[in-house]
Amino acid sequence: MRASIKDIARATGYSITTVSLVLNNKGNKISAETTAKILEAARALHYRPNQLAVSLVKQRSKTFGLIVPDISNGYFSSLATGIERGCQKYGRMLFLCSTNDQRSRNIKYINRLAEMGVDGIFDIISRDTTLEEGIVEVQLMNDLGIPHILVDRILDAPGCAGIENNHIQGGYLATQHLIDLGHRHIACVTGPTLLEDARRRYAGYKKALRESGIPLEEQLIYRGDYTQASGKAAVKSWSDGSYTAVFACNDASAFGVCQQLLAEGKTIPGDISVVGYDDAIYAEMLQVPLTTIRQPIQEMGMEAARQLTEMINRHTTLKEPIVFEPQLILRSSTAERNRP
Amino acid sequence: MRASIKDIARATGYSITTVSLVLNNKGNKISAETTAKILEAARALHYRPNQLAVSLVKQRSKTFGLIVPDISNGYFSSLATGIERGCQKYGRMLFLCSTNDQRSRNIKYINRLAEMGVDGIFDIISRDTTLEEGIVEVQLMNDLGIPHILVDRILDAPGCAGIENNHIQGGYLATQHLIDLGHRHIACVTGPTLLEDARRRYAGYKKALRESGIPLEEQLIYRGDYTQASGKAAVKSWSDGSYTAVFACNDASAFGVCQQLLAEGKTIPGDISVVGYDDAIYAEMLQVPLTTIRQPIQEMGMEAARQLTEMINRHTTLKEPIVFEPQLILRSSTAERNRP
Repeated sequence: MRASIKDIARATGYSITTVSLVLNNKGNKISAETTAKILEAARALHYRPNQLAVSLVKQRSKTFGLIVPDISNGYFSSLATGIERGCQKYGRMLFLCSTNDQRSRNIKYINRLAEMGVDGIFDIISRDTTLEEGIVEVQLMNDLGIPHILVDRILDAPGCAGIENNHIQGGYLATQHLIDLGHRHIACVTGPTLLEDARRRYAGYKKALRESGIPLEEQLIYRGDYTQASGKAAVKSWSDGSYTAVFACNDASAFGVCQQLLAEGKTIPGDISVVGYDDAIYAEMLQVPLTTIRQPIQEMGMEAARQLTEMINRHTTLKEPIVFEPQLILRSSTAERNRP
Repeated sequence: MRASIKDIARATGYSITTVSLVLNNKGNKISAETTAKILEAARALHYRPNQLAVSLVKQRSKTFGLIVPDISNGYFSSLATGIERGCQKYGRMLFLCSTNDQRSRNIKYINRLAEMGVDGIFDIISRDTTLEEGIVEVQLMNDLGIPHILVDRILDAPGCAGIENNHIQGGYLATQHLIDLGHRHIACVTGPTLLEDARRRYAGYKKALRESGIPLEEQLIYRGDYTQASGKAAVKSWSDGSYTAVFACNDASAFGVCQQLLAEGKTIPGDISVVGYDDAIYAEMLQVPLTTIRQPIQEMGMEAARQLTEMINRHTTLKEPIVFEPQLILRSSTAERNRP
């Protein structure tokens, strides 16, 4: 157990008031001898001011919380690292909380972080969160009086501005690249369409097709969930082979697509071109290094830390979303469509 | 701002004492009507009991802290996920703190977690920590009266027992596998030898060579630091080409080794066999899927959570290290030595 002021009073024979005054640097009327004795006892007993008590008074812990869906997912761990660096730059410590993509755990962690007295929260909503539930989550942070900022997965609702990627543009860039290479039958593995970012990547795909006058082929759209397994399942579902390219809405599902294509004896990009999304750490390590969409994750994380710090210092909220632009990363998984 | 008991007293006209008794469930002498009015006001004002104040009294937060060197490193994020699951199983929440492998940040986070009133700490020491500094770090947690357990990177000192991998056995398995394939000139990329786990992997390598009567070739030992860059640099340093196999002490450096070998026009495993260590997420995704050593990370994480929970419930400390055994994972990067 940590030594309390009481313990020091007991050890030295001075009153709790006297000890408290000395330890809180308000002992200017107390003799040097007494002060020295109390400080010596405090050192010997490993006394430390109780931050809980200090926080109660100051209401500032210089600590932020970050709620992430899955810390073992490279995308989120990179984002977390960016936010960590930003927090360090702005003199904050950071507690990360991993929710296993369950909304109920976001709620629990928001409450716990508030109880612990953190100064602000970066919240990434969970995959199973509806728009209505997301609004309730933001409202909870408002009710708790805790400054907050949504990162990465955002909500299309008033008062829910956050730091986001331009995912429509990302989906558009990926698809336009395939169109530029001569592809006309472009399959798509979507993310979980409950998520706004997945809907937007898919919207970008549709926008590129529409602009080029290419009809959308419903049978080539596979509703995935951002997992490797859903990429594999998608390829199996397209067994008639009427496509020459795939846009997978994240790298994990793109990896599943590639694995299944290679397992079926197809070549990449000879038979089928594949584009992913995220530029995960392994994208360039794959057997066929993956053409993909890179989001400026580190910069996003740094900016999130800057914004939250400003919001606290200036008592403001974020009025407009802050949008980061994605970039096409060309590697070896895409090529011109084979002429028949 | 969060509504306080004072605010509710002001809003209802009752005294702070009355409001406090009702909200702390000690209002059995207070009329039902008064109780109802106070509870209604508490709801309307979004009152929540202040956990900081509650923690001061109960000294239990049902929350653990985990200090990790680098959350964007797949090995540590998997370990963190295992600990997270364990905490969830034992009814604890978990705050992760990422230190960028700097000992000074371990110390800061230990202090902050203690101040915040977490019930216990899982500590992974930083790469730059000497044995003496590690002992001081453990002593700090003892002084703070906070139950703690070292995970993964352990200290060879009394009172510092933790959850560890049998890294000597891991290094031995990797090297013995290459010896079994007929290799006699086996190069090694070590980890940062300040770390006990890196020293042990290397000790396992030496043990296997010694047992087979193969002389250690100093010029084939490269002092790396667990990075991809150090794997590349190692291959460049062995330009005379007198080796047929490499044991890289983690997968990141093994990936660097493979990249550089392929860049120099060598084939894997035709010219050179490569074994890694960790079984990182990308090990099987590589151009040449990597033979490596798998540590039971998830199980380690779960066990760490169980042990820390027990230590708290039974007021004990860990007397003996808990050792997990590694396993050789065979893939495509190793083969029999070419006959001349």
